[in-house]
Amino acid sequence: MSDTSSNQMWGGRFAAGPDAIMEAINASIGFDKRLAAQDIAGSRAHAAMLAATGILSDSDAKAIREGLLTVLSEIEDGSFEFSTALEDIHMNVEARLKELIGDAAGRLHTGRSRNDQVATDFRLWVRDQLDAADAGLVALIRALLAQAEAGADWVMPGFTHLQTAQPVTWGHHMMAYVEMFGRDLSRVRDARARMNESPLGAAALAGTGFPVDREMTAQALGFDRPMANSLDAVSARDFALEFLSVASISAMHLSRFAEELVIWSSAQFRFVTLSDRFSTGSSIMPQKKNPDAAELIRAKIGRIFGANVALMMVMKGLPLAYSKDMQEDKEQVFDAADNWMLALAAMEGMVRDMSANTSALEAAAAAGFSTATDLADWLVRETGLPFREAHHVTGSLVAMAERKGCDLSELTLEEMVSVKDTITNDVFDVLGVHNSVASRTSYGGTAPARVRQQVARWKEILE
Amino acid sequence: MSDTSSNQMWGGRFAAGPDAIMEAINASIGFDKRLAAQDIAGSRAHAAMLAATGILSDSDAKAIREGLLTVLSEIEDGSFEFSTALEDIHMNVEARLKELIGDAAGRLHTGRSRNDQVATDFRLWVRDQLDAADAGLVALIRALLAQAEAGADWVMPGFTHLQTAQPVTWGHHMMAYVEMFGRDLSRVRDARARMNESPLGAAALAGTGFPVDREMTAQALGFDRPMANSLDAVSARDFALEFLSVASISAMHLSRFAEELVIWSSAQFRFVTLSDRFSTGSSIMPQKKNPDAAELIRAKIGRIFGANVALMMVMKGLPLAYSKDMQEDKEQVFDAADNWMLALAAMEGMVRDMSANTSALEAAAAAGFSTATDLADWLVRETGLPFREAHHVTGSLVAMAERKGCDLSELTLEEMVSVKDTITNDVFDVLGVHNSVASRTSYGGTAPARVRQQVARWKEILE
Amino acid sequence: MSDTSSNQMWGGRFAAGPDAIMEAINASIGFDKRLAAQDIAGSRAHAAMLAATGILSDSDAKAIREGLLTVLSEIEDGSFEFSTALEDIHMNVEARLKELIGDAAGRLHTGRSRNDQVATDFRLWVRDQLDAADAGLVALIRALLAQAEAGADWVMPGFTHLQTAQPVTWGHHMMAYVEMFGRDLSRVRDARARMNESPLGAAALAGTGFPVDREMTAQALGFDRPMANSLDAVSARDFALEFLSVASISAMHLSRFAEELVIWSSAQFRFVTLSDRFSTGSSIMPQKKNPDAAELIRAKIGRIFGANVALMMVMKGLPLAYSKDMQEDKEQVFDAADNWMLALAAMEGMVRDMSANTSALEAAAAAGFSTATDLADWLVRETGLPFREAHHVTGSLVAMAERKGCDLSELTLEEMVSVKDTITNDVFDVLGVHNSVASRTSYGGTAPARVRQQVARWKEILE
Amino acid sequence: MSDTSSNQMWGGRFAAGPDAIMEAINASIGFDKRLAAQDIAGSRAHAAMLAATGILSDSDAKAIREGLLTVLSEIEDGSFEFSTALEDIHMNVEARLKELIGDAAGRLHTGRSRNDQVATDFRLWVRDQLDAADAGLVALIRALLAQAEAGADWVMPGFTHLQTAQPVTWGHHMMAYVEMFGRDLSRVRDARARMNESPLGAAALAGTGFPVDREMTAQALGFDRPMANSLDAVSARDFALEFLSVASISAMHLSRFAEELVIWSSAQFRFVTLSDRFSTGSSIMPQKKNPDAAELIRAKIGRIFGANVALMMVMKGLPLAYSKDMQEDKEQVFDAADNWMLALAAMEGMVRDMSANTSALEAAAAAGFSTATDLADWLVRETGLPFREAHHVTGSLVAMAERKGCDLSELTLEEMVSVKDTITNDVFDVLGVHNSVASRTSYGGTAPARVRQQVARWKEILE
Repeated sequence: MSDTSSNQMWGGRFAAGPDAIMEAINASIGFDKRLAAQDIAGSRAHAAMLAATGILSDSDAKAIREGLLTVLSEIEDGSFEFSTALEDIHMNVEARLKELIGDAAGRLHTGRSRNDQVATDFRLWVRDQLDAADAGLVALIRALLAQAEAGADWVMPGFTHLQTAQPVTWGHHMMAYVEMFGRDLSRVRDARARMNESPLGAAALAGTGFPVDREMTAQALGFDRPMANSLDAVSARDFALEFLSVASISAMHLSRFAEELVIWSSAQFRFVTLSDRFSTGSSIMPQKKNPDAAELIRAKIGRIFGANVALMMVMKGLPLAYSKDMQEDKEQVFDAADNWMLALAAMEGMVRDMSANTSALEAAAAAGFSTATDLADWLVRETGLPFREAHHVTGSLVAMAERKGCDLSELTLEEMVSVKDTITNDVFDVLGVHNSVASRTSYGGTAPARVRQQVARWKEILE
Repeated sequence: MSDTSSNQMWGGRFAAGPDAIMEAINASIGFDKRLAAQDIAGSRAHAAMLAATGILSDSDAKAIREGLLTVLSEIEDGSFEFSTALEDIHMNVEARLKELIGDAAGRLHTGRSRNDQVATDFRLWVRDQLDAADAGLVALIRALLAQAEAGADWVMPGFTHLQTAQPVTWGHHMMAYVEMFGRDLSRVRDARARMNESPLGAAALAGTGFPVDREMTAQALGFDRPMANSLDAVSARDFALEFLSVASISAMHLSRFAEELVIWSSAQFRFVTLSDRFSTGSSIMPQKKNPDAAELIRAKIGRIFGANVALMMVMKGLPLAYSKDMQEDKEQVFDAADNWMLALAAMEGMVRDMSANTSALEAAAAAGFSTATDLADWLVRETGLPFREAHHVTGSLVAMAERKGCDLSELTLEEMVSVKDTITNDVFDVLGVHNSVASRTSYGGTAPARVRQQVARWKEILE
Repeated sequence: MSDTSSNQMWGGRFAAGPDAIMEAINASIGFDKRLAAQDIAGSRAHAAMLAATGILSDSDAKAIREGLLTVLSEIEDGSFEFSTALEDIHMNVEARLKELIGDAAGRLHTGRSRNDQVATDFRLWVRDQLDAADAGLVALIRALLAQAEAGADWVMPGFTHLQTAQPVTWGHHMMAYVEMFGRDLSRVRDARARMNESPLGAAALAGTGFPVDREMTAQALGFDRPMANSLDAVSARDFALEFLSVASISAMHLSRFAEELVIWSSAQFRFVTLSDRFSTGSSIMPQKKNPDAAELIRAKIGRIFGANVALMMVMKGLPLAYSKDMQEDKEQVFDAADNWMLALAAMEGMVRDMSANTSALEAAAAAGFSTATDLADWLVRETGLPFREAHHVTGSLVAMAERKGCDLSELTLEEMVSVKDTITNDVFDVLGVHNSVASRTSYGGTAPARVRQQVARWKEILE
Repeated sequence: MSDTSSNQMWGGRFAAGPDAIMEAINASIGFDKRLAAQDIAGSRAHAAMLAATGILSDSDAKAIREGLLTVLSEIEDGSFEFSTALEDIHMNVEARLKELIGDAAGRLHTGRSRNDQVATDFRLWVRDQLDAADAGLVALIRALLAQAEAGADWVMPGFTHLQTAQPVTWGHHMMAYVEMFGRDLSRVRDARARMNESPLGAAALAGTGFPVDREMTAQALGFDRPMANSLDAVSARDFALEFLSVASISAMHLSRFAEELVIWSSAQFRFVTLSDRFSTGSSIMPQKKNPDAAELIRAKIGRIFGANVALMMVMKGLPLAYSKDMQEDKEQVFDAADNWMLALAAMEGMVRDMSANTSALEAAAAAGFSTATDLADWLVRETGLPFREAHHVTGSLVAMAERKGCDLSELTLEEMVSVKDTITNDVFDVLGVHNSVASRTSYGGTAPARVRQQVARWKEILE
């Protein structure tokens, strides 16, 4: 191969010597340019404050604030030339600002440092992602509510150990995920409230002697207040770890639902048909529909929680205040955020588009003596048997039905009475799956009325 | 070796055949007996509710509730005999109850199942741990406040990259950790509020047809409300994952402080002297004091976050509702909780007992031209130089001092003026470390007055 | 509550003051007593060497070696009293030895320290576990070979995306796991070979001035050689991390198979019937069989890989040589080893006992146009169509069959020819599932003859 | 901002509807184009084999093989246009081939599928990285050997708990890392040997009916043999997990050394001076040198082990054969490999360039009664005291020296004799740090002669 460069090892790639290695390991502009909008917003707020407090002249502040808008529009329209030699987004922006407005640019950095600047940028970015996750979760919950409302009384098997246990309703199953994603949402909001404090003005680590107004910049950037300790302001990354934890738990919920969709889509289950838009086909087997989106969503927990592990390891045992190790925080959070948002959007689309195969669901619900518990409960309730004895009687009846190759509801009253003489004709009321689910009326139970009650409650919450 | 049993592989250990393997992998009584108090509290609340709703006779309920108290006292005084054949804590308790009160025991399980029972027990246990963590964090914060108050104006080096950057105060450094543990505390409280819902009455997964009063049991157990979906109630483990996430982030903060204490205790730093009670010595080198407690605290993040990983992997891709995989949740949470509490208590003790070596701290703070930033800021503030230029001038003066082998404050005014003629005698005011820290008066800055302000704020918060 | 100790939080537990906290966090005897046999073996080898090199008198060595055997038998028969005040297994054994033989016990520690002693003990323990894993993997492979041999020509669906893709044989599927566990086995053996070096004689960290013979102790303990650097000998824990990595990968393979067994046991699949011994039932639904063992095996990857994470975090960034953090290594490895061995044994038992439902497997294999690829391959092979075109023709035929509601083999030749006129009667040879699998004769393919070839190869390897 | 697109959530980003979400989550071409060279090598080997076995005509094979070279050169020179619509690297290459050579391109896919194709590509890529890691580790070991040889007799403190324990030599410390990276190297080679098997010819999952010669393609691609089970060939990812495990353990070793370099570079330690090329400065404090490269290397364990976690979670519980989840394997391995290679190269450069501050090292080595153990050993060796008693005597002498404010070697013989009357003048021979290290002559000990022996052994190994 004439061009060896792409297949060589680093030893070779770094023929240019240590400087090339150092640049490769050190520069962050390759990824932190995603913070451009946040960086410029932070600098503009800082400049306004410097002018308001008299640290900077109004004309300098004006030049800086307008120059920064120009830089932003250059970045947005793609005409900005990022330079690796300038290492990071902060230096890239400042260098360009100097080209645009001259020496005044050099006054922008008064009373702050790169340490509080990057902490501010990153918090703003993470806050945006928490807002995006909030919206994504709400959209997903709405999609689930629509499914739950439509299928509040469709009967399907409730599983334990992937074995049929008791009949439940489709709506009830959907609402279980509403509760999970609802708690994810509440975690998102708690995290946002906790992290929404401004590091700006903490300077390098000790605060500053300039008479800065940290309340003013905090407010301008939508923060609730300035952070109360400057060492903490530049050292803290728990806000990023909390973001990753919240995302990971949400990804866990997504993975559980995705697993169910994969299983439900199998030829053996056929509980659900995913739309073509979230499946892929096979040129050779046109009937085949692979649940690719569900599988990818199921997998996303890997990289999201992997990012959590990565940053936790980075932060383990780091002394205060700033260490360069912390530069590794951003790529992990960027990747986790992108993939969480993507998984939420894909799940929402899939849920909106999927159709339940109600006849397959009902047939599966009725199989496997799924109303045995209803029978036992009936024996307790109507005949006063202790629970453990009622279980024993039910076991005998199920065994009898199994020997006969029929369902419980197909046993005759006579046969039943031969096992327990207090059984009456009324028992048959509880042996059908529709009666079964209708009877589970305890708060939070699977009865259609209860499901509709919860749908209504959630609609109100989301209004 | 004549006795081969202890060194053999499982194949050998399981000579008794598959049943022994199954028992070994299946039984949970070895660890879930830690849930005994919670299990009995849950059952007593359930029995009271069954009586109140007429599902159970008052006399049965009374017998059950008193019998359970007897079981509890047997467990507490160590006379209870746990049986592996009875698999778990629920069956162990119920079997003993039956021995004590006879058939009425069999009525206790009406309208619930092991699925909602274990979910209830485990939530109660985790809630207790959140309360313990709350207390542990508050105690640690108080210990830090005491250190901060005592040393609000002790000067020490502020580091970046473990290189001296700027002088800060001991109190300021302590208060940085107060902020971190304060956020840990707020995460604990958010988690508690979110998870404080009762699964009891969800039954196996579908709810129940018995007219149970889930509000009543929820209230009796201190829950804010019953969970709103029975499938979710028995399937959810995000409360345990959130506990582990919160604990992991807190362990990260502990690891950072512990690392500092290890480094500060080295012969090279000598910033701090740990008490004998939290160190170990060497019989051969009596002067030696190993910071064992700090090292062990530093290490605890491993098993705490390892538990987080473990449970996250277990939950990944689990279909609803209950799967046996979820039995793996408890040991992870138990171990993480024990070690978090232990680490908090050990850190609190260490912080209370440690003494700062103020002379070593101050000497280190003054070394390495640590007030160079103060000089640069003075140039900006007093002579109107742009920040970037002021940096340049400062660099030249530092280089001059380095060549002379003296500190910045030991340069003559003449020497300074030779570099920048606008420098005046006033500059010396900012070159001492005490002046330096006193000048950092921005909100959250290291100035002693600011530190005392934060100490006061936190005392008020904790009152 | 009269006895408050067990239910209080740490703050309360440590009422006795810091000493109790320090003891709780510091002592290791609670877990490192599992190293007793290894510790005594190491000490006996060390004593023999000290005598052989003249450092110790023969009579002292004899007293020590016999005294240690007495200690061992006391530990084995349960009469040994472990003391937490003596912190760890080494001090417990040495203290008892002194009681038994007097001052000579004090000479045992010549030329070694606790650092190389614990490293030796732990390596010996891990080596035993690697041997146990070796045996466990071999046993599991044998169980799979038995299944593969029995079912070399039972037809079942091969899945991609849990969708039927092509027919394969039961034996082929079993042999896929033989390959995976075979690689696990080879990793176990590589790890053992790499870690089988003796740290003994490294002393505290620098080696020793006593004329010890490290080759002699290495040989006595079955090590291949002494470790070549004393600092490394007491600092290294990569052998433990490699053990955990190897175990984790193996647990991943176990989790995949366990997932399949859970799915295959569902009412919807019914591919396999697990034996009663590895399932649990329901008192109320006697026909129900929950695949508990499979679920627990699936979950074990959590704690095994969690232990890997835990120890990796502990070791991250630890300076040489010994730090107390490293005391956290043992519990992780113990727990992971126990659970790996348990999972291997449970999987072996489950595989031995399970029965394939051949008719369900075959029916599922034939469904879903699973031989469409065979048809396309036939078109390429027999009629010379390019692959991509053959796919297109096959797609049309599958679509036709789907419209007719029949399988591919139920189309008439006439119908086929209407789509592609080069099709002949011979095509029907490849459309049956038995013909399909028989035709996949490429090396490693699913043809029964190929499966039997691999079974034979593996039997030879394991002989 | 009028254009809100960049700050919106995914719901907005995906205004184009579900198709855009599906494309975003599904397409892999964005990252798998890194497999281009491997993909084309695999296809060329496959085409040659198809011709050799008569499945393809020689002229078609020739066209394909030459066309693929053209595609490769287009990719290498950057003129190739990748299309997301074509999803992945395989389809992109094949589509371009078809443009170049027409219908013959369609025959290339005979007897294989994308499943075995991607498995082959990915194995080839990982194998290349194992080779790169091999080279990187060898280079790093050589750099350490150079340091060890230069400083075989430079004395420095050996630490436990970051407390001075005993004097060691610089060379000995360097050689400890040689051992660690040497084991990393052996893990790399074991992993390579194990994974170097060819999946090609496994086709979709069942093998193929075409008379392919898997030995031939295996050989052409440098594989040792074809994989023995086609289901396993397309499902296995343990080779990728083993790569990540090996990389993680190596990253752990790198993090330990990096931590030492950070601590050693502090003003308090000053053990080592890093070169400018691997440090960054401060414009304001020209004397300041931040160990950025060391910090970044220390941090790399995060993302490398994070990738390990990510892929382990993805693979947990995946049924055979191919699931789309597995598409998440590549980005993790790519990122981990890039960062491992980078960290190895940066560490090698730093080690080559760094200079030990021998006087600071020696001064630190002599402080803290670091030869107390030598004194105790002398008492055992020369006066016959039992080890535990010798410790006690030494403790008394250290306490005496501490009271006097002098070192052990500064006590008079008379003072020593007052504690233990068998002490003679010879004792002073062991109290100096040079004598101390020279005396540690046990195999693997810190004596300069032993260090040089190990340097020579390693040079021979690497020859």
